[in-house]
Amino acid sequence: MTVGASGLPAAPAASPSPGAWDAVAERRKIYLETITAEEAVARLTAALEAAGWGTAAEVIPVAEALGRVTAEGVTARISSPHYPAAAVDGIAVRAADTYGASETSPVRLGPGQYVWVDTGDPLPPGRDACIMVEDLNRLPDGQVEIYAAAAPWQNVRPIGEDVVATELVVPAGTVLRPQEIGALLATGNVAVPVRRRPVVTFIPTGDELVQPRPDPGPGEIIEFNSRVVLSLVQEWGGEPRRHEIVRDDYEALKAAVAAAVETSDIVVVNAGSSAGSQDYSVHVLGELGQVLVHGVAIRPGKPFMAAVVGGKPVLGLPGYPVSTWLTADLFLKPLVYRFLGLPVPSRPRLQAQLTRRLTSPMGVLEFVRVKVGQVGDRVVATPMGRGAGVISSLVRADGVFFIPPDREGLEEGAPVEVELLRPREEVLRSLVAVGSHDIILDLVESHLRRRGLGLSSAHAGSLGGLVALRRGEAHVAGVHMLDEASGEYNVAYVRRYLGRPARLVLLGRRDQGFMVQPGNPKGIRGFGDLARPDVRFVNRQRGAGTRILLDYHLKQEGVDPAQVDGYRREEFTHLAVAAAVASGTADCGLGIRAAARALGLDFVPVTQEEYELCIPLEHWDHPGVQAIRELLTDPAFRAEAEALGGYDLRDAGRVREV
Amino acid sequence: MTVGASGLPAAPAASPSPGAWDAVAERRKIYLETITAEEAVARLTAALEAAGWGTAAEVIPVAEALGRVTAEGVTARISSPHYPAAAVDGIAVRAADTYGASETSPVRLGPGQYVWVDTGDPLPPGRDACIMVEDLNRLPDGQVEIYAAAAPWQNVRPIGEDVVATELVVPAGTVLRPQEIGALLATGNVAVPVRRRPVVTFIPTGDELVQPRPDPGPGEIIEFNSRVVLSLVQEWGGEPRRHEIVRDDYEALKAAVAAAVETSDIVVVNAGSSAGSQDYSVHVLGELGQVLVHGVAIRPGKPFMAAVVGGKPVLGLPGYPVSTWLTADLFLKPLVYRFLGLPVPSRPRLQAQLTRRLTSPMGVLEFVRVKVGQVGDRVVATPMGRGAGVISSLVRADGVFFIPPDREGLEEGAPVEVELLRPREEVLRSLVAVGSHDIILDLVESHLRRRGLGLSSAHAGSLGGLVALRRGEAHVAGVHMLDEASGEYNVAYVRRYLGRPARLVLLGRRDQGFMVQPGNPKGIRGFGDLARPDVRFVNRQRGAGTRILLDYHLKQEGVDPAQVDGYRREEFTHLAVAAAVASGTADCGLGIRAAARALGLDFVPVTQEEYELCIPLEHWDHPGVQAIRELLTDPAFRAEAEALGGYDLRDAGRVREV
Repeated sequence: MTVGASGLPAAPAASPSPGAWDAVAERRKIYLETITAEEAVARLTAALEAAGWGTAAEVIPVAEALGRVTAEGVTARISSPHYPAAAVDGIAVRAADTYGASETSPVRLGPGQYVWVDTGDPLPPGRDACIMVEDLNRLPDGQVEIYAAAAPWQNVRPIGEDVVATELVVPAGTVLRPQEIGALLATGNVAVPVRRRPVVTFIPTGDELVQPRPDPGPGEIIEFNSRVVLSLVQEWGGEPRRHEIVRDDYEALKAAVAAAVETSDIVVVNAGSSAGSQDYSVHVLGELGQVLVHGVAIRPGKPFMAAVVGGKPVLGLPGYPVSTWLTADLFLKPLVYRFLGLPVPSRPRLQAQLTRRLTSPMGVLEFVRVKVGQVGDRVVATPMGRGAGVISSLVRADGVFFIPPDREGLEEGAPVEVELLRPREEVLRSLVAVGSHDIILDLVESHLRRRGLGLSSAHAGSLGGLVALRRGEAHVAGVHMLDEASGEYNVAYVRRYLGRPARLVLLGRRDQGFMVQPGNPKGIRGFGDLARPDVRFVNRQRGAGTRILLDYHLKQEGVDPAQVDGYRREEFTHLAVAAAVASGTADCGLGIRAAARALGLDFVPVTQEEYELCIPLEHWDHPGVQAIRELLTDPAFRAEAEALGGYDLRDAGRVREV
Repeated sequence: MTVGASGLPAAPAASPSPGAWDAVAERRKIYLETITAEEAVARLTAALEAAGWGTAAEVIPVAEALGRVTAEGVTARISSPHYPAAAVDGIAVRAADTYGASETSPVRLGPGQYVWVDTGDPLPPGRDACIMVEDLNRLPDGQVEIYAAAAPWQNVRPIGEDVVATELVVPAGTVLRPQEIGALLATGNVAVPVRRRPVVTFIPTGDELVQPRPDPGPGEIIEFNSRVVLSLVQEWGGEPRRHEIVRDDYEALKAAVAAAVETSDIVVVNAGSSAGSQDYSVHVLGELGQVLVHGVAIRPGKPFMAAVVGGKPVLGLPGYPVSTWLTADLFLKPLVYRFLGLPVPSRPRLQAQLTRRLTSPMGVLEFVRVKVGQVGDRVVATPMGRGAGVISSLVRADGVFFIPPDREGLEEGAPVEVELLRPREEVLRSLVAVGSHDIILDLVESHLRRRGLGLSSAHAGSLGGLVALRRGEAHVAGVHMLDEASGEYNVAYVRRYLGRPARLVLLGRRDQGFMVQPGNPKGIRGFGDLARPDVRFVNRQRGAGTRILLDYHLKQEGVDPAQVDGYRREEFTHLAVAAAVASGTADCGLGIRAAARALGLDFVPVTQEEYELCIPLEHWDHPGVQAIRELLTDPAFRAEAEALGGYDLRDAGRVREV
């Protein structure tokens, strides 16, 4: 497919084939039985137990066994040490020969009485103690003088000081760490029985899927779920195998599943989002084996399916990437650990307060991704978008939690136990930024990370940022708000919405203007043009500094927002607005020059504005704040930022008291 | 070498070579300059900075990048989605065509007005909204009926909903997780710049070293430090390489180090315990480069050395396995992470109370391994032995901490912050057993682990166990103490030493007797024989049930302990006593039949005793206690235990109230 002049795909999707409608209706019916996640796990577990599915053992070299799980307890084949050994550098003696020795009346031993030993040497025959070289005086005639009697077995490492032969070195079910590797080798074990890693084969399905590439066409979806899930499998200790993409062809899918079941311990079918593949999956699984689960009351992830084929579990994971990740976590992970005979490890947890109300339908287990940070004494969790298609949300999330099925939601301020996706310390140490989005902030994040500091930023618009500061939910807020009365940026808003002493640090001045298609085909020059019927606009969300700027100018020029086609179409970032223009679904949006430039759009400047970080005084000493201030005066950083286009960092780092 | 009739090595160690003495004296001098661990790190860091040593980058396929660290921030090459897409199965329409539709006055669209779409399909040209199939009524003439107006862009995934082209997907310095792999592929990145893993070459040195094997001869030490350290390197993200063992030959070691420096980023020389290798190491490093550190005020690990050769760090780790592990952790780990551009991750920590006083010399950073457990509301840390040769201590330890150089020790009850070596939850959930050692307890540990429960057991003798219970430092204690007055086991002691209600659970009856060399060459029949001058005895520590048994019988037979050769030679377990007899360094010890049998000794029975677990009532409901009780009545477990020899489990699980 090619992209037409409008930016829309030139060729329409195939018109509905005869029967497609009925197929969809049929497919929808299959979901009638949605069960709880617990019930899904219970059904699968019971069926697998009945089928005798489970762990298997193999014997491998100890030197290659890091991270593997012992299948049996392993005992010492030899003692360690396996002979009585000198524990010091010095001489080995008969303790009895030294009795009576003291500082005032040293005992002398002749060459026949002592034997020189290094640490680790076997104790020579007939000797039962060692004396350190520091405690001896060597006489010219080859005798040595001793100033204290040696106790029997002094400075001798007994056989088995570390481990005695036959003793248990490592119990069954132990994940082997470096020290276990050492203890096994020390006790004469060169091989170790371990639980076999489960082979997990992942089958991507769908006509729309293509291999990863930098230039997919419209309608082509890059197949990456296999890489995500198989990376998870690798982390959990399974053995990942990727099947090539299977097209929407019933027989091809059936053959692929049947073959994979033969060579795997677990098979995963990843249903594409297309009509055919989900439909085929469930029928293929039903034909080859027994479908136990089809539909689970979770969000996202409802179309999950599970079957037992040939005594082995076959999971059907839905195709939206967050659904895939979540259902892998909920249903595949326990299978991998079960095969390894290990409990599923729990993620580190953190109690936090929800920063806003969440609703959720009764009867559904709802998955929530959150940004988490410690602001003052509070640990706060800010919910992120809940879209199932947004894999980047799992990149940006600090943690996740579930709204249980018996709750219709959670109130603002509710305590939640967050399962962390990053190390706890990293989360607690992060600087929490809520507010307007700016591309320089992304640069700042990379630089802070190099210094071991994190930046947890959420885009909520300038006003949203000030509100978050006021409520103690963020350390800093990026703001660029033009005060209609004074024509000055930020100060008036901070005074009005924050209500406590703060400082404003200038990140930079940036050009704001109209982002338009290359060559500005609609000839947009000013705010008046937005009211033209042939101009489709795309707006920012309420509270965004750019929206405030728009409203200010519309008012000045006497344009009624109702006249602007697209005034109510809202995006949350400059780049999202630019993308709408670039794709041709809009003709114009207001935003920064760097975003227009990034997507190859033309830019009609409107104004230069001051983008500042608002920092309440109590957070001024946060290490992240200090690191940002240093960065802003660093010439290399300024040059890097200005290269983005439309930024002026000459006064970056300027501090204003509010 | 072969083992002589006495059990001692038949050939003595080489007699001191001329000059050996002086070499040793010289070697000792080299330690004169012991510096602090901080100073050692600072010197090395400064020298490496001056040499420009550090991170390097390479570009690799994203699909192989799990766990790697981004060398630069990675931006989206394409938006995700990269075209406006249907977000539902249904029809694509012009929103304007649907205006006015309601339940009472539906709008009808003809086949030319709508296009059938599946989720993920590109939005067809000229359409700006989608309507779910569930919200439609299909009429026989091919028209569809709509009951609500569609808002523009409803059910359309905008371009860049997930990520907009040019947006930062992953900042520099990010450890790539499965979700980052997905986000990179989704945004058209098929390759990613990552920091190169540092190549760490480990050179084991020493004439005494042999490759891992089940049958080393006396004086041969199995080389396993390389496997431990290189496993650590693997866990940290470095690329481990093992050099073959280098003998104690100056030129060979020099050649090996010089070659390794060429092909590695970090070189580790592991000095054996022999006289030559340490000596050679420091001189080789001094000849090839600059020795910065030789001697650090830590225990164990004092002989650590560090040099810079050809601009690269070369570390000399001392040979005792705990010293090797500790110096790798303190000095090698920061280098690996520095090369990767990552902060050193900290271990999970837990506040605990020390169960006994520890002393430590001023000026030395002392490494302490501890068993940790939660008993009631208290988290307690019980110090383990501090031997540098005991790799098994790192297997059994739950955590570690340091006594700082400015402290001469820590008092009993002192708060310590333990760095955990196991997951926090596993440590807190473990059943803590202190007391007499029994081989069945090892079996129990393996079985509990299969049930996801841990057993943290420390050998402190029966009496030590009761004291630990009384002080709230353990949940259960294994006891077998014969009361001289009543001739009954355990009850009297528990009443006397515990001082609160408890239950005794019979683990089993076991045979106690004399462990002697095969064929009983000294003809030991009774306690009277222990006083014979030709009989060398090996005893158990004070407080051990077996020591109480010995003292009881010696008293009954009127034998003075002073007459028993070896009465003061103490070991801490049955197996350690058996090992002393098996090695020929003692003729006889008192202990259980299973230990004698394990090491192929003959056994002269003395009595059958009751080995019980004492459990204070407040710990009766601990999940571990309940699991043990179930286990003890399981016929399969009983059979497994009785197969060890000398055990009678007929009444196992019997409960007595005390």
